[in-house]
Amino acid sequence: MKAEIITIGDELLIGQVVDTNAAWIARECNLAGIEICRITSVPDSRQPILEALVHAGEHADLVILTGGLGPTRDDRTKKVLCGYFDTRLVFHQPTFEEIKERFKQRNIAMTPLNRNQALIPEACTVLPNKMGTAPGLWFEKNNTVFVAVPGVPYEMKYLITEQVLPRLREKGKTKAIYHRTVLTQGIAESVLAEKLEEWEDNLPEGVRMAYLPSPLVVRLRLSMVGEDLQRVKKVVEEEIRKLMKYIPGYIFGYDEDQLAGVTGRMLAEKNQTLAVAESCTGGYLSHLITSIPGSSVYFKGSVTAYTNTIKQDLLGVRKESLETFGAVSRQVAEEMVMGVKERFKVDYAVATTGIAGPGGGTPEKPIGTVWIAVAGPGKRYAYNYVFAGDERERNIIRSSQTALQLLRRMILKEL
Amino acid sequence: MKAEIITIGDELLIGQVVDTNAAWIARECNLAGIEICRITSVPDSRQPILEALVHAGEHADLVILTGGLGPTRDDRTKKVLCGYFDTRLVFHQPTFEEIKERFKQRNIAMTPLNRNQALIPEACTVLPNKMGTAPGLWFEKNNTVFVAVPGVPYEMKYLITEQVLPRLREKGKTKAIYHRTVLTQGIAESVLAEKLEEWEDNLPEGVRMAYLPSPLVVRLRLSMVGEDLQRVKKVVEEEIRKLMKYIPGYIFGYDEDQLAGVTGRMLAEKNQTLAVAESCTGGYLSHLITSIPGSSVYFKGSVTAYTNTIKQDLLGVRKESLETFGAVSRQVAEEMVMGVKERFKVDYAVATTGIAGPGGGTPEKPIGTVWIAVAGPGKRYAYNYVFAGDERERNIIRSSQTALQLLRRMILKEL
Repeated sequence: MKAEIITIGDELLIGQVVDTNAAWIARECNLAGIEICRITSVPDSRQPILEALVHAGEHADLVILTGGLGPTRDDRTKKVLCGYFDTRLVFHQPTFEEIKERFKQRNIAMTPLNRNQALIPEACTVLPNKMGTAPGLWFEKNNTVFVAVPGVPYEMKYLITEQVLPRLREKGKTKAIYHRTVLTQGIAESVLAEKLEEWEDNLPEGVRMAYLPSPLVVRLRLSMVGEDLQRVKKVVEEEIRKLMKYIPGYIFGYDEDQLAGVTGRMLAEKNQTLAVAESCTGGYLSHLITSIPGSSVYFKGSVTAYTNTIKQDLLGVRKESLETFGAVSRQVAEEMVMGVKERFKVDYAVATTGIAGPGGGTPEKPIGTVWIAVAGPGKRYAYNYVFAGDERERNIIRSSQTALQLLRRMILKEL
Repeated sequence: MKAEIITIGDELLIGQVVDTNAAWIARECNLAGIEICRITSVPDSRQPILEALVHAGEHADLVILTGGLGPTRDDRTKKVLCGYFDTRLVFHQPTFEEIKERFKQRNIAMTPLNRNQALIPEACTVLPNKMGTAPGLWFEKNNTVFVAVPGVPYEMKYLITEQVLPRLREKGKTKAIYHRTVLTQGIAESVLAEKLEEWEDNLPEGVRMAYLPSPLVVRLRLSMVGEDLQRVKKVVEEEIRKLMKYIPGYIFGYDEDQLAGVTGRMLAEKNQTLAVAESCTGGYLSHLITSIPGSSVYFKGSVTAYTNTIKQDLLGVRKESLETFGAVSRQVAEEMVMGVKERFKVDYAVATTGIAGPGGGTPEKPIGTVWIAVAGPGKRYAYNYVFAGDERERNIIRSSQTALQLLRRMILKEL
C-alpha cells in the first residue's frame, strides 16, 4: 500500500515548528507495512491544500492529512475537503454531544467556535477523538482512502493508532509486520556497530535493522514484513536471541521500556525503596522516576538542593566538605547520597552534583562535569563524568540517565 | 519571492529522521523575506525527485533541494538534475582539488567514490563547500533559481548561509519580513479567538495571524512581508499594542520565552527567592524551573514528597490533616507550601498535590484532580483543578504549568 502524508500549517513553512508529526506517522505506517512515497507540507490556504490533495489522490492508495482542523478561522482544511469531495458541511449531533461533554467535564464554557467543530463534511465517516474536540475524518474516493486528523500531536497519535490503523487492518490494507526494539545503554553507537558486524552480516533476508541513537541510549530496531505474522515473529525473535550473546550487559530493555521503569520494577519486586538528592539535575531525575505509573510503590521522594545551605540543612552535607572540596566533588556527592538515604529511610539512594552550564565552568571543573553517587544496602560509590558540550538540557538528561544506570547496576550487584 | 524546499532521503519517509533541515531552511528564508510555499520530502529515487522538481519549477522563483549529494550509490540527485536541466556530468578540477586537500588534511585515503564527487552538472555554478566534500550546485532556468546542497546539517547550513542567501541578496531577490509570537496562558484557544474576533477582523491588509496551540499555552503569531523592514515592523508592533488591550493578563511573553524563564526573571529582578514542594508533579515543576540558565540565582530547591511520612517529616504537614482531608486537599497543599517556604527560607513557594493517574482516582477525587498552593510575602492561596484525561504525563505537565502561572500572577500581585 502506497501512502502520502500532507501536513498543513503556516508554522511549518516559516520553520517555527519542526514537522515531527510527519516523521511519527511515517514510522508508524512503515511499521504497519505501508510505504510512504511523499510528504508534503503546505500552508493553511485553500489552493496549496487542494493541489496537494489532487496530487496525492492521483498517486497514493492512502492519504493522511494533519493540521488545520482546529476551531479558529485560520483552519481551512474542512472547507477544502468539502470542495475536493464535492460535499458540504453538516451539523453532526454525536460529535456535538462529545464536545459538550468534554467542556462540561473540564468546567469550561463552550463558544460558538466550538460548535463549529461539530460541522462535518457530509461524505465522511467520523473518527471519534477521545483526546480533543476535533474528530478525525475518513473519506474514500476512487479506491483511495483519505484521512484528516488534527495537528496536535497527542490527538493525532491517538487517532492514527486507535482509529486509522485498526480500520486499515480490518480492510486488509496492512501487511503482517513484526518489530522489536532492543534498548542498550553504556555503549556508543560506533562501538556497538563494530561488535555487531558479524551478526548484522548474517541477518536473514528480509530482516531490517536500524540504529536509533539518542543521548546515552542506543536503540536497535529489528523489523520484518511478510504475509504471516507468526513466521516473521519467529525469525526476528531468533535473531534477537543471537544478538544477546554479542552484547550481554548492555541491553536494559525492549520496545517502550524506560530505564526508570525497568529499574523501578526491580525495586518493586524486591519490596525495596528509593530516594534521590539532586543538584545539577534539578528535579529531572525525580521526574524520570515518577513518570512511571505506580512509582509511588518504591519511590519515597527527593530533595533538590540548589544552594550550599540547603545541602547542609536538608541533606546533612558538612560545611567543611563544601568549603574544602566544593559542591561538585566526590565528598559532597557521597554526603548527599548518605544524607537522603538516612532522612528518607530508604534501601537505595542516588545523588547528583555537577555543572550543567551554560555558565559556571572552570578549567578544573568544566561544564559537563558531574559527580554521581549511588548507595544501597551496605554499599556506597561515587563516579565522576565529564560530558562534552555546554548545552544545559543535554547535560541534565545525560546526568540523570547515568544516575539511573548506576542505580540499576547496583541493584543487579554489578557495582 | 516564492520558494519551495525539496528534501531527499529514504530515512525521512520511514520516519527514522525528523526533517529538521526543512524547518531550518524555512526559518532562514523567512527571515530573509523569502516565502516558503511548500516543502516536499521524497525518497532517493529518480521519478519522485524529478516530479518534485517539475512541480516546484512551475510554481516557485527559488527551489532548494537538500540531500542525495553524498558519495554513496543511493544518492541520485545529481543525475536527476542533469536530466531536468538537459546537461551532463563533467569532471570539475577545482572541486577535485578541494576534495583531495580535505582528505590530505584529515589524513584519510580517497576512494573512487570520492572522486565521483567532483563530477558536476555542466550547466551549474559550483558553490564551494568548506564543510564537506560535496559542493552546492546553483542552476537557473526560466527565471527560477535551483539550488542543491548536501543533507548533512552543518554542510547545508554553511552553504545556505554563506553561499546561497548572499547570492540571492546580491540579485535583489530577498524581501523584508517581520514576525512576532505572542504567548498566552490560562485561556483556551476558542475563548481567545472569540475575544480577538474584532481585533482580527480589523487587522491591516498583509498582516497574517495564526494560532499555535500546545498544552496550556496558546501562541499567536503575527507576520508581515514588505519592501521596508521598519515599516512592516511598525505595523505589526502597532497591532500587538492593540491586542494587549483585548487580553490583558493572559500574555506572559513573546517569541521564545518560557513561563519558567519569564517568572524567574521577575524574581531575579526583585532579588527574591523560590522553593517548591511537589507531590503529583514528582520533580517536573523543579525541572521546568531549573531548565532556565541562571535559575540558581533565585531557586533554592525543592522537596518531592511522594509519601505521607515524607510530607510530615520534611515539610511539616500535620498527621491530622492527612488523616482528615487526605493527601490531595486544600489543607495539605497549604501546609506543604508553608512548610517548604519556612524550611527553605524563601520569599515565594509553590506546592502541588494531586492524582496524576493512570491509577489512584476515586469518584470524589478523579484522576486529574490537583490542589496547587502558592505563597508569597504575607499571602497564601490554594486552588483546585480537575484536568481531563488520565494520561499521567499530561497531568504532570498541566499541573506544573498551572503552578508556574499561579506563581507568576502572585508575583504580579494579580492574586
